[in-house]
Amino acid sequence: MRDVAIIGVGMNKWGELWKQSIHEIFVEAALEAIDDAGVDHIDSMYVGCMSGGLFNGQEHLASVLADYLGVASIPAARVESACASGGLAVKCGILDVMSGASDIVLVGGVEKMTDVSGDAATFALATAADQEYEVYQGVTFPGLYAMMAHAHMHKYGTTSAQLAAVAVKNHANGSKNPLAQFPQLITVDDVLNSVMIADPLHILDCSPITDGAAAAVICSLETTKRIDKKPIVKFTGFGHATASIALHSRSDLTTLTATTEAGNRAFKMAGRTPADIDVIEVHDCFTIAELMVLESLRFFEPGQAGPATEAGLTQIDGKIPVNASGGLKSKGHPVGATGVAQIIEITKQLRGEAGDRQVKNARIGMTQNMGGSGGSTVTHIMEVI
Amino acid sequence: MRDVAIIGVGMNKWGELWKQSIHEIFVEAALEAIDDAGVDHIDSMYVGCMSGGLFNGQEHLASVLADYLGVASIPAARVESACASGGLAVKCGILDVMSGASDIVLVGGVEKMTDVSGDAATFALATAADQEYEVYQGVTFPGLYAMMAHAHMHKYGTTSAQLAAVAVKNHANGSKNPLAQFPQLITVDDVLNSVMIADPLHILDCSPITDGAAAAVICSLETTKRIDKKPIVKFTGFGHATASIALHSRSDLTTLTATTEAGNRAFKMAGRTPADIDVIEVHDCFTIAELMVLESLRFFEPGQAGPATEAGLTQIDGKIPVNASGGLKSKGHPVGATGVAQIIEITKQLRGEAGDRQVKNARIGMTQNMGGSGGSTVTHIMEVI
Repeated sequence: MRDVAIIGVGMNKWGELWKQSIHEIFVEAALEAIDDAGVDHIDSMYVGCMSGGLFNGQEHLASVLADYLGVASIPAARVESACASGGLAVKCGILDVMSGASDIVLVGGVEKMTDVSGDAATFALATAADQEYEVYQGVTFPGLYAMMAHAHMHKYGTTSAQLAAVAVKNHANGSKNPLAQFPQLITVDDVLNSVMIADPLHILDCSPITDGAAAAVICSLETTKRIDKKPIVKFTGFGHATASIALHSRSDLTTLTATTEAGNRAFKMAGRTPADIDVIEVHDCFTIAELMVLESLRFFEPGQAGPATEAGLTQIDGKIPVNASGGLKSKGHPVGATGVAQIIEITKQLRGEAGDRQVKNARIGMTQNMGGSGGSTVTHIMEVI
Repeated sequence: MRDVAIIGVGMNKWGELWKQSIHEIFVEAALEAIDDAGVDHIDSMYVGCMSGGLFNGQEHLASVLADYLGVASIPAARVESACASGGLAVKCGILDVMSGASDIVLVGGVEKMTDVSGDAATFALATAADQEYEVYQGVTFPGLYAMMAHAHMHKYGTTSAQLAAVAVKNHANGSKNPLAQFPQLITVDDVLNSVMIADPLHILDCSPITDGAAAAVICSLETTKRIDKKPIVKFTGFGHATASIALHSRSDLTTLTATTEAGNRAFKMAGRTPADIDVIEVHDCFTIAELMVLESLRFFEPGQAGPATEAGLTQIDGKIPVNASGGLKSKGHPVGATGVAQIIEITKQLRGEAGDRQVKNARIGMTQNMGGSGGSTVTHIMEVI
């Protein structure tokens, strides 16, 4: 197997970017990644985007973006796995380099979600669930995660305050991230007193609607050494898995089987265990998601992630720092870009470039990017060599 | 580089499949491909679909389809490049096998286009063009190809009768394909007297709106030999390229640069030239497209594909048989499935299983699958070994 490293990253300030088109947002991030990498060309490109069709009336997005980036003629593919589209783009780029077909690949993600009304955005997001058996019955995404939260509370005694502790921690981290959409500090009371969206999830338990892009340049280890980019950050493992798309098909609502499977594949490939990981970015689309993901990856025993979060074990100076970037909750969640932004945060942490949110002695990092209510998951393990 | 072969194909009868869901259509084709391959598992899956969001309100499609196919837990990715989504799925599957990450991969494509009104379908298809500079100004896809047709007529003297000859030939071929949506024989007069859609393109110059799926199982050559599937059909080359998305950015409307580039890449990889190809499936979304593609791939000199078609050189018993399957024109064009169906036709031709439309002594075949008005193209060369 050909070794693959990451040599450049780029991301713009996320938020409600009404003055920019989806092209401009992507190109800004892509040019920064290419500049950071110091390469004079790219061989191919993968773009993660959940729904350019429903949000922007624009499919064929990889060709559009390659054209606007000025690299048309190279192979460019859009890949989609709902909210895991960004992680999928990274994985496809790695396979491309591993195969030998490409040497230097741009992987990116983008979503411009504020061009449509809130209702239209809710509909677009719901297309990640089972349209026939869930959405047509009126379920929205907060509703799906609310059901999982209730099941988790019932089985393990998880509390609303523990959920709130996830949001409080992620906003504290995000306050140290100049690119975060909502860098404001919040308290547990703020969360518990915020408007209820889908019981037990308050609005401050939910990640926001965001416009944003993220991009990275990956390449073969030989090329990385030739470019002499240091420190070298290498992908040592990745995992990709699917699961039942609809909640009613699952035997247990409190665990995420695709996350467990994708995690196991990455751990096996890298020869690592959760105990080896110094820093991790996980998919906290809702506060309950962060707890379920940490348990599904076995960073904590089932039911223990809530108490651990309240005890500070997942803070930047804790036992396992989780979402030092601010996570989806504070940094924002432009769906297709999220998985790539996770890769960027881990790269910065491993390079020692994370500023005020730097995790000390971070040498091995991991990402977990999830689609829909857990119907797909992509994980990556990255290490400084 | 690891060699990759194709060992199973499956496709349902295409048409207006109102009694079946998008899941059912895909699963039917996928099960047939798996059965044809004789494998007991698949390691991963790629699905080409242009717009599950706009046509069916369903994104996250690869997870949905993996779930309905009963293989959830495997890695499954949806890939999109407008009308070239199917070819892209095949290419991504090949890279996956080449990389060593997977050994046996299901590649498929699906589109269910008749669940929405004609207006909505026209809008969905237009999202393959530049939304800001083309679609908002009122251009539809027939309009874009009509402009290319006018330019071609002006530059080379191509006639409406030559365009019609493409449709007549493809319907003649499709009449021998039991899975074709429109197997009716037509005449040049039928085409010229049919309703005008966008001058000079009549409705019988246009491919139809179609529901359908296509699937194939590909795997490493070692595994193919172990399974002892004969004859062995191997991928010897592939090419993937992009071009300016909007027509106004192109220096010449009569040629398709992404097709030329993707073709050159495949020819170079396979060590072949157009003269070596025994049978080819090309993207005849409109009759003018078939002529421009054949010239862009250098099967004919610029301006010569029309006269060649009128002279019968592209018929099944001609110098270079083009679209023996009936092409998009007669077989139908469920956008995401088309590129995979092209691969199926070439597989059947190389296996000698194409029935009444069999090309004699077909040993080397090629496919050309195009996105939008030519903004992306994926090509494959396949050979019997």
